[in-house]
Amino acid sequence: MKKLMNQPNSVVDEMIEGYEAAYPQYVKILPQNKRSVVSVDTVRPGKVGVVIGGGSGHEPAFMGVIGKGFVDGVPVGNVFASPPPDPILEVTKAVDGGAGVIYMYGNYAGDCMNFDMAAELAAMEGIRVETVLVTDDVASAPKSDIDRRRGIAGGFLVFKSAGAAADKGYSLDEVVRVARKANDQTRTMGVALSPCSVPQTGKPSFVLADDEMEIGLGIHGEPGVERGKLKTADEVADALLDRIFDDMPLTPDDRVAVLVNGLGSTTYMEQFIMYRRVAARLANLGVKVHRSFVGEFVTSLEMGGCSITIMKLDDELAEMIDHPVDTPMYVQK
Amino acid sequence: MKKLMNQPNSVVDEMIEGYEAAYPQYVKILPQNKRSVVSVDTVRPGKVGVVIGGGSGHEPAFMGVIGKGFVDGVPVGNVFASPPPDPILEVTKAVDGGAGVIYMYGNYAGDCMNFDMAAELAAMEGIRVETVLVTDDVASAPKSDIDRRRGIAGGFLVFKSAGAAADKGYSLDEVVRVARKANDQTRTMGVALSPCSVPQTGKPSFVLADDEMEIGLGIHGEPGVERGKLKTADEVADALLDRIFDDMPLTPDDRVAVLVNGLGSTTYMEQFIMYRRVAARLANLGVKVHRSFVGEFVTSLEMGGCSITIMKLDDELAEMIDHPVDTPMYVQK
Repeated sequence: MKKLMNQPNSVVDEMIEGYEAAYPQYVKILPQNKRSVVSVDTVRPGKVGVVIGGGSGHEPAFMGVIGKGFVDGVPVGNVFASPPPDPILEVTKAVDGGAGVIYMYGNYAGDCMNFDMAAELAAMEGIRVETVLVTDDVASAPKSDIDRRRGIAGGFLVFKSAGAAADKGYSLDEVVRVARKANDQTRTMGVALSPCSVPQTGKPSFVLADDEMEIGLGIHGEPGVERGKLKTADEVADALLDRIFDDMPLTPDDRVAVLVNGLGSTTYMEQFIMYRRVAARLANLGVKVHRSFVGEFVTSLEMGGCSITIMKLDDELAEMIDHPVDTPMYVQK
Repeated sequence: MKKLMNQPNSVVDEMIEGYEAAYPQYVKILPQNKRSVVSVDTVRPGKVGVVIGGGSGHEPAFMGVIGKGFVDGVPVGNVFASPPPDPILEVTKAVDGGAGVIYMYGNYAGDCMNFDMAAELAAMEGIRVETVLVTDDVASAPKSDIDRRRGIAGGFLVFKSAGAAADKGYSLDEVVRVARKANDQTRTMGVALSPCSVPQTGKPSFVLADDEMEIGLGIHGEPGVERGKLKTADEVADALLDRIFDDMPLTPDDRVAVLVNGLGSTTYMEQFIMYRRVAARLANLGVKVHRSFVGEFVTSLEMGGCSITIMKLDDELAEMIDHPVDTPMYVQK
């Protein structure tokens, strides 16, 4: 698969350089580590530092949302690979304002290992770090084993909630509480239609026939739960929603945030057609949509397909979701 | 090519319904015409109405930027086809605040015919309409024949400039003057790597070999100016920039806005790698980048490739580019 790149091994560094060059009013690369990207705003004393991260290839996640009200720093890994402890530690030191730091990332083995190691190193330097794993992907493990689930697009809403809490001056314990609650109330189901390819190999990450889709396929190509013929958009949306509603029942007058996330090559047209069905299903349940997000938030390079995320809101989470943010790739007034 | 859709013939209507459902705080479909989308904000008396449009398939253009500081209404055509006069006229009547209305769109035969007809009908109802055609695509005609050029991604910056002028309360003549100046100072060059398919046919819009690219290919698949082997990102960026700089020479201390626009399936990673080279070339010329935009602004469904737009700024245009906007798909503080 064709890519606009110079050398396969330089794509991540060059992307970060381009990102810093495009948005110098928001972000800077730390001189200590070229894979450590942080907000240009001086650390606010007493504010909890918010660090998210993981492999690259999911842009605009994660470094796209560095900025006021959202995230303070992002260590950047290779494509679909966790960042090592070094850039995580450097980011942690840079964003610590004395009130501790929260780490949030999807529940992937490499990320868990490296972020945990960085947290230990940070502790040795006197920085308290707490971790909240994102586990919104309903397809990745049964409900009986919910802690094994992976994090996908719903992370955007979890990160946003915690980022808002930190921006409001909550203590680390309180930011962690909000992040955990946000994650507990968030469910995502995705569908893949076509593969991506990582720059190093250029090979498709999986193979689907011209008339096939796979439900529950992970954002790195992890196997899904159901492969079959591509159905209509309404049927696909229903298949995703049925699994979400089964996992997290909704009742009339519940309030939710909805995120329809394009995986890379899926058009906005298709995303809005999917959203249309989500809105109709929620209206049918008597559920109120508090705020919607449609677009690309957590991609898998140029994978085809999309995911639907539902986050159940109480007053506190609604306030966090409404909190204004100002970042390069996402601004909310 | 696979699509998430219900019926090929309902994609546009369902997309618009999904869009209104997702962003009711911003937009509404006019009851008079289901292809007429306008801002929910009441028309401001004395403010020039800003109408842009064209075929669908270019989302988030055009209806993605309806909102404060940007665009008031959008008539929506079928995929890659101009809207007919009816929805244009309905939008015009809905956004007229007594100060007249500006139409802006790419210089395509169908759009010119239908928008002109709508303008005549509006005149009969006492609404003054002025039109500014966007002609930023350097590849689409030689400089000696500049008025024949088509409009592509640079339209985003032209629309933004005029939207800002209207929001500031400029008269129709002044908004037209700003829009013309913005267009005169804007140049775009694109490159395509892979085709899209329209929902009705499912067929690729053109064919490129696995190692080929085409420079200057239009957003509806119009033939480009050079087909050849895919080169490195830096070489491709240089090929696009050389044509832009040749057409609109820049000198040290010039100020510009830069837009790197993904055509649909091109990753942010690739876009930032392209941006990196643009920034280096401009720095080398001593040109100051005033503001940058990287992402998907004017797509061609899931086409692969991107374009680079350079807009030369004077103080007035810089002010328009910095003007805050609040729309569903693009917010600027």
